[in-house]
Amino acid sequence: MTRKILAEALGALLLTACVVGSGIMAERLAAGNAAVALLANTLATVAALATLIVLFGPVSGAHFNPAISAVALYRRQIEASTAAMYVVAQIVGCCAGAMLANAMFELPLVNLSSHARHGPAQWLSELVATAGLVLIAFRSPDIREAAWRVALWIGAAYWFTASTSFANPAISIGRALSDSFAGIRPVDVPGFIAAQLAGAVLGVVLLRALGEPKVAT
Amino acid sequence: MTRKILAEALGALLLTACVVGSGIMAERLAAGNAAVALLANTLATVAALATLIVLFGPVSGAHFNPAISAVALYRRQIEASTAAMYVVAQIVGCCAGAMLANAMFELPLVNLSSHARHGPAQWLSELVATAGLVLIAFRSPDIREAAWRVALWIGAAYWFTASTSFANPAISIGRALSDSFAGIRPVDVPGFIAAQLAGAVLGVVLLRALGEPKVAT
Amino acid sequence: MTRKILAEALGALLLTACVVGSGIMAERLAAGNAAVALLANTLATVAALATLIVLFGPVSGAHFNPAISAVALYRRQIEASTAAMYVVAQIVGCCAGAMLANAMFELPLVNLSSHARHGPAQWLSELVATAGLVLIAFRSPDIREAAWRVALWIGAAYWFTASTSFANPAISIGRALSDSFAGIRPVDVPGFIAAQLAGAVLGVVLLRALGEPKVAT
Amino acid sequence: MTRKILAEALGALLLTACVVGSGIMAERLAAGNAAVALLANTLATVAALATLIVLFGPVSGAHFNPAISAVALYRRQIEASTAAMYVVAQIVGCCAGAMLANAMFELPLVNLSSHARHGPAQWLSELVATAGLVLIAFRSPDIREAAWRVALWIGAAYWFTASTSFANPAISIGRALSDSFAGIRPVDVPGFIAAQLAGAVLGVVLLRALGEPKVAT
Repeated sequence: MTRKILAEALGALLLTACVVGSGIMAERLAAGNAAVALLANTLATVAALATLIVLFGPVSGAHFNPAISAVALYRRQIEASTAAMYVVAQIVGCCAGAMLANAMFELPLVNLSSHARHGPAQWLSELVATAGLVLIAFRSPDIREAAWRVALWIGAAYWFTASTSFANPAISIGRALSDSFAGIRPVDVPGFIAAQLAGAVLGVVLLRALGEPKVAT
Repeated sequence: MTRKILAEALGALLLTACVVGSGIMAERLAAGNAAVALLANTLATVAALATLIVLFGPVSGAHFNPAISAVALYRRQIEASTAAMYVVAQIVGCCAGAMLANAMFELPLVNLSSHARHGPAQWLSELVATAGLVLIAFRSPDIREAAWRVALWIGAAYWFTASTSFANPAISIGRALSDSFAGIRPVDVPGFIAAQLAGAVLGVVLLRALGEPKVAT
Repeated sequence: MTRKILAEALGALLLTACVVGSGIMAERLAAGNAAVALLANTLATVAALATLIVLFGPVSGAHFNPAISAVALYRRQIEASTAAMYVVAQIVGCCAGAMLANAMFELPLVNLSSHARHGPAQWLSELVATAGLVLIAFRSPDIREAAWRVALWIGAAYWFTASTSFANPAISIGRALSDSFAGIRPVDVPGFIAAQLAGAVLGVVLLRALGEPKVAT
Repeated sequence: MTRKILAEALGALLLTACVVGSGIMAERLAAGNAAVALLANTLATVAALATLIVLFGPVSGAHFNPAISAVALYRRQIEASTAAMYVVAQIVGCCAGAMLANAMFELPLVNLSSHARHGPAQWLSELVATAGLVLIAFRSPDIREAAWRVALWIGAAYWFTASTSFANPAISIGRALSDSFAGIRPVDVPGFIAAQLAGAVLGVVLLRALGEPKVAT
């Protein structure tokens, strides 16, 4: 169990360091072209996410995301105590990852974001992105397949949703700690988390409707 | 059968939401550089298409495209009634997907496109893209291989055809509902569909000429 | 044998249509940023090349390249008569592909290039790119692996060589027929072909030095 | 053993030629947009690294990196004499690769870099990148998996670390020989190497903490 908690925390840390760090780098270099910055941020996220899922998947299942752990609990793939410890590890890891990114780029370790992200269109975006994520994660036959499918879905959703697809309550908290490209104002975090949890519920409904041929955690 | 129809509709919906939504996002961020916008639109489409094919393939075959369903019917891989229901589900899904993208980006739900796309060069482009798609889809040995091959072919064809490769009658209709980067004027849709169907016929001819070693639906 | 010739010609045609067509599209859209144009040209080429190799590989081996056919002949994997017909099919296919791209983009079908590419640095580049291509193609254990390895090598070499890595005598001839981003002046083609053939020889030497564990054609 | 040394030297040479050469090409074409240049440099590196690992992995294990050879020695996967010869081959290969890139782009063969890279944030970045690289390389079940995981990790780390992730003492030396986008001042190389070796130690600690289920060289 210690190893599982370590894997969830370390995976969440490295994922968030990548999302936030590549956002900072991209914004600094992109000479004002936000599409180029988001493109770099997307490619770095997809690459890191796929790698981290196969790296930590055999240890903990590579959730890195309270929405995934909650659905796994609902589907009785993990126990309540495990889910609780996973969620704590994910939140701690995501916050530490944002701080690591800040440190690598010589910013204050905690640097609350001023990036406003709210309103029905943003919440609809998070709902769609998270529902799709749940569908894809729990219909993947194994960790290796899940790695590619989840990473590509998130990469696509960075672009086709208006919110750039956080789709993860823990990383939403972590991203509040960096006032940069990938940040979110602390006051906007609860709305994102509510939309993500609603999306997870929709994902479960769709999983049932489609008949759930295969299961992966 | 209900699950198959649901899978076709949901896949067409998410694919179109991705194509249209990432087009809107890309155009907004790209600061006037259309190549950067098309690059982002391409990568999002490739990622979503590959993911959706493996996600829904085991349920419905993941056609998402009347041209594919028509060829599958011609090759007696599906029945006429199935093909008819698939095509309806695909068209409904693509229209709903364009509306979902409009909603996520705070545009009117139905927002007819003013993007002119017509003329022999455009039609030749659609013919080439669709013929290649049919060749690739029906020579893939299984769904997982088809996912990568089809997604990469479409991604390449976004760039090497003058029409950016719609290659799908249902998505041609759906894209008419969004006045954005990925849109097409309603009046130009019939020409595109005719060229796509001609391309499907050419694809069948080439499949025969090459000897069709393997079949996938 | 007819099917093999058809596969080589059609593969060469589609590959060249992609290289030339995506170059035209990229140059038109890139607003003067040549790096963005080459990026799009690279991604389209990689995607098409990987797809075409798995599509036509089971039929003809998916050479599409006289340098590959020459090495296969030297290694006695194909007969001299086959190699000769392959080379003709490849050259005809590449020329037709450039013409198809010109047609899709409303340019004159034959449009001789004025893009100067010559000198020792360019030839050294072609030698390195082709030697690497031969190493990678003939050390791949099967067609599916070869598809990814060859496509990624060519994609990398578009950037790390000064010549943008043609690495193929047939496509060098075809690209002379389009006065666009991916073109080459007819007068510069012989120098490129000589450098490519020298690279193929170097590739064979390296294959021997490394011990050739596996063979694929 | 001669073949192994040749594989390490040739792999290091081609990898460095790609990193340096694509940096030169990208900087020349990118019209001042450093994000576009780094994007091209990243994609070329990822493509070449994945290809070179599967190409040379069956011969030598495809280390190309003294930090990897040192960890392999510590884990008793290779002998001390092999590790010593590998490190020499890697350094010679990386220097030759930088010179090859300079030659392809008509620059002086040895062209000492003036690109300053130093300070705690840069060293922290190298530590994180190398620790992650060790974790990923030694938890990969085989060479084919290692190829994708290592290449994607390095690609992500080009963006999410402030140092653009050299993560390799030999390539740090080689990159000092080119005064271009990917270069590093000779005086800054020792600091990078120290941080990379500290990262390798951290990687070994994390490997132990996670339980090391699988081993690959």
